[in-house]
Amino acid sequence: MRAGVVVTGTEVLTARITDRNGPWISERLGELGVEVSHILCVGDRRPDLAAALGFLAAERVGLIVTSGGLGPTADDLTAEVVAGFAGRELVLDERMEERIAEIIAGFARRLRFDADALREANRKQAMVPRGATVIDPAGTAPGLVVPTAGPTVIVLPGPPRELHEMWPQALDTAEARAVLEGIDPYRNATLRLFGIPESELAKTLREIGEQTDLSPLEITTCLRRAELEVEIRYRPGAEETCERLVDGIVARHGRFVFSRDGSSLDEQITELLDGHRIGLGESCTAGLLAARLTEVPGSSSYVAGGVVAYSDRAKRELLDVPSKLIERHGAVSPQVAEAMAEGALARFEADLGIGITGIAGPEGGSEEKPVGYVCICIKSASGTEIARDPVLPGNRGEIRDRSTTLAMHLLRRLLRGEEFPL
Amino acid sequence: MRAGVVVTGTEVLTARITDRNGPWISERLGELGVEVSHILCVGDRRPDLAAALGFLAAERVGLIVTSGGLGPTADDLTAEVVAGFAGRELVLDERMEERIAEIIAGFARRLRFDADALREANRKQAMVPRGATVIDPAGTAPGLVVPTAGPTVIVLPGPPRELHEMWPQALDTAEARAVLEGIDPYRNATLRLFGIPESELAKTLREIGEQTDLSPLEITTCLRRAELEVEIRYRPGAEETCERLVDGIVARHGRFVFSRDGSSLDEQITELLDGHRIGLGESCTAGLLAARLTEVPGSSSYVAGGVVAYSDRAKRELLDVPSKLIERHGAVSPQVAEAMAEGALARFEADLGIGITGIAGPEGGSEEKPVGYVCICIKSASGTEIARDPVLPGNRGEIRDRSTTLAMHLLRRLLRGEEFPL
Repeated sequence: MRAGVVVTGTEVLTARITDRNGPWISERLGELGVEVSHILCVGDRRPDLAAALGFLAAERVGLIVTSGGLGPTADDLTAEVVAGFAGRELVLDERMEERIAEIIAGFARRLRFDADALREANRKQAMVPRGATVIDPAGTAPGLVVPTAGPTVIVLPGPPRELHEMWPQALDTAEARAVLEGIDPYRNATLRLFGIPESELAKTLREIGEQTDLSPLEITTCLRRAELEVEIRYRPGAEETCERLVDGIVARHGRFVFSRDGSSLDEQITELLDGHRIGLGESCTAGLLAARLTEVPGSSSYVAGGVVAYSDRAKRELLDVPSKLIERHGAVSPQVAEAMAEGALARFEADLGIGITGIAGPEGGSEEKPVGYVCICIKSASGTEIARDPVLPGNRGEIRDRSTTLAMHLLRRLLRGEEFPL
Repeated sequence: MRAGVVVTGTEVLTARITDRNGPWISERLGELGVEVSHILCVGDRRPDLAAALGFLAAERVGLIVTSGGLGPTADDLTAEVVAGFAGRELVLDERMEERIAEIIAGFARRLRFDADALREANRKQAMVPRGATVIDPAGTAPGLVVPTAGPTVIVLPGPPRELHEMWPQALDTAEARAVLEGIDPYRNATLRLFGIPESELAKTLREIGEQTDLSPLEITTCLRRAELEVEIRYRPGAEETCERLVDGIVARHGRFVFSRDGSSLDEQITELLDGHRIGLGESCTAGLLAARLTEVPGSSSYVAGGVVAYSDRAKRELLDVPSKLIERHGAVSPQVAEAMAEGALARFEADLGIGITGIAGPEGGSEEKPVGYVCICIKSASGTEIARDPVLPGNRGEIRDRSTTLAMHLLRRLLRGEEFPL
């Protein structure tokens, strides 16, 4: 049994919006053991959407998942076109109409929106193909699971948060369960590495492949945010092959492997920071590290705060970096990064302080200190320290992002008491 | 004449790689006046790729553009499948074989690659459908323009840089020119609104549509980062209809329309901040506003810095928020936001100060101050001020992002001397 994905919206046919729903759905289906044959992106045009559904049916997929086109405006056509595809009439679901009315009643009152416009929008969103199972909205648009003579169609809204929230409910409907019954989910293993290039890993994979037949495994390597992710997927029975591969990688690149259980760097940092109190001094990353550390609920228990010291003056006055240090070594220097870390420690009465200063570009580089040159220093109140000053590749945004990631990895090492070059 | 796009590669069917080629090609074609009916993402499987080409031919597109699948490995199938689709034999292009050999000779020597493996890879990449026009590689893979009984097929490699470099050459071939001849490029207009819900706009579009035939326009509305974008595309001749629509929207929602020329909020803020000096005090957004303002090269000329005051202590000691204010009104209150703005003004010797404090959740809300309650205050050194304390919808990440966007919009209003409710 294979599946197809249809992403709707004229905006996904342009570079203004990057669709992430198609790949997200495809990956979730893959985890369930369902291969996706095609992802189709289609504009808000009835015949094109109908053609996409027809194509997938002709390809004999057992399941189609659509995202988008469930909003209140006239270009939101998905429910209507899927109803036509299924040969089912669109009818008003009164329970759903009330449910949507409840959801929007609150903010309609508060924001004094036009009640008529809302009622009408509301009714359109409650029109569902007769016989479809309706999935409770995570926003205001309900989802649908629609049986047809061919593939079962799961219809979900476009906003990613709503789609993600409604996905488990969609899978839990009787129709979806029937389609997915008896399919063996893939097993998978994930390794994450930081600090070695992709070509090293490719060489390792070749070498291991010479001794072990890796063909039962589907191995994908992916470089993301300066981290190397190795994803291994297999059907039940290939556990031992997978183990041999993982052991081989760890034997060769052990200290660069920071995750073997699928945990992300951010999750690990959250755990490691428990009981600590951290203060930040950021220049080139300008708040990115603070923002990233505080993505996690409850992070206020260990993030005391930070100073975005974009000017020399801010470095001096809010982080107590001595003027002389800036004059002698420049604002981007290991010395100033260290002083910023010390200033953050003191100012926030923290037990961990981080200083980051660098040249994000595109201007401001020199031969000695090119664009991408970044100085990072992490200090603990107890006197341990870890510091680096690499030249990072990429454009302004990438340099800022990689600086943040590198600082997180160095923080992880300091907290784990590991220290080694690079 | 319409076109279709086919993006190949099993990796584009997962969330680990985000395809940007499909939307990029689609947007370029749109600028030329060619509507794209579908973008299909397909794995490295012969029958699926062939089915995708067949579907687009059946949809009667005049042009198909493919990206990817031109590399040296066994899963690179595009040239072969397109040759089959066109009913043309694959033949070795000797001139191209030499050209590729030249390109790779340099790095092969430098990196001491296996010469046999390279020769073979090299030959595979020089196999082209008989009668196709070959496009010089920007990397090592040549592109193809292949005439068929149906649509003309432009075949380009997957790496974005190579694709972008080879695109003009592909369009300049006799086959592509013949297909594109006589097509009028689209015109377009973009409106961006902030502060009204999509349903209000839907009502407006319906009302205008009752008086003016809007069918010559392709109108898409899209909600992104709490902003509403209206994109209007039309063929030459529909200028007046477009103008009537734009005027109608502006007449009804004038003060919510912040962009009529395609400029983004961030671009406008960058221009408005020229000659100013801004300091930030952030609590719930924790550096996101500082990071966003400094995404722009050169922003160091007007961003002095910020304090991420995640703890009460940081609010007191680094932004001079009086303890009494926090005790009396709570850390999340309009009074504290104002004091944070004042503290940022003073600490950074700025002429603009922003204070943001709120409850991003999921914990920490109360009946009086629920999750999503955010207090924003912007002050200028000359004494003007703009402040809001709405309850924003969404999860933790969305509340933080929307707080940032709202602060940017309020800053825009203050800098433009506009003040009105909401």
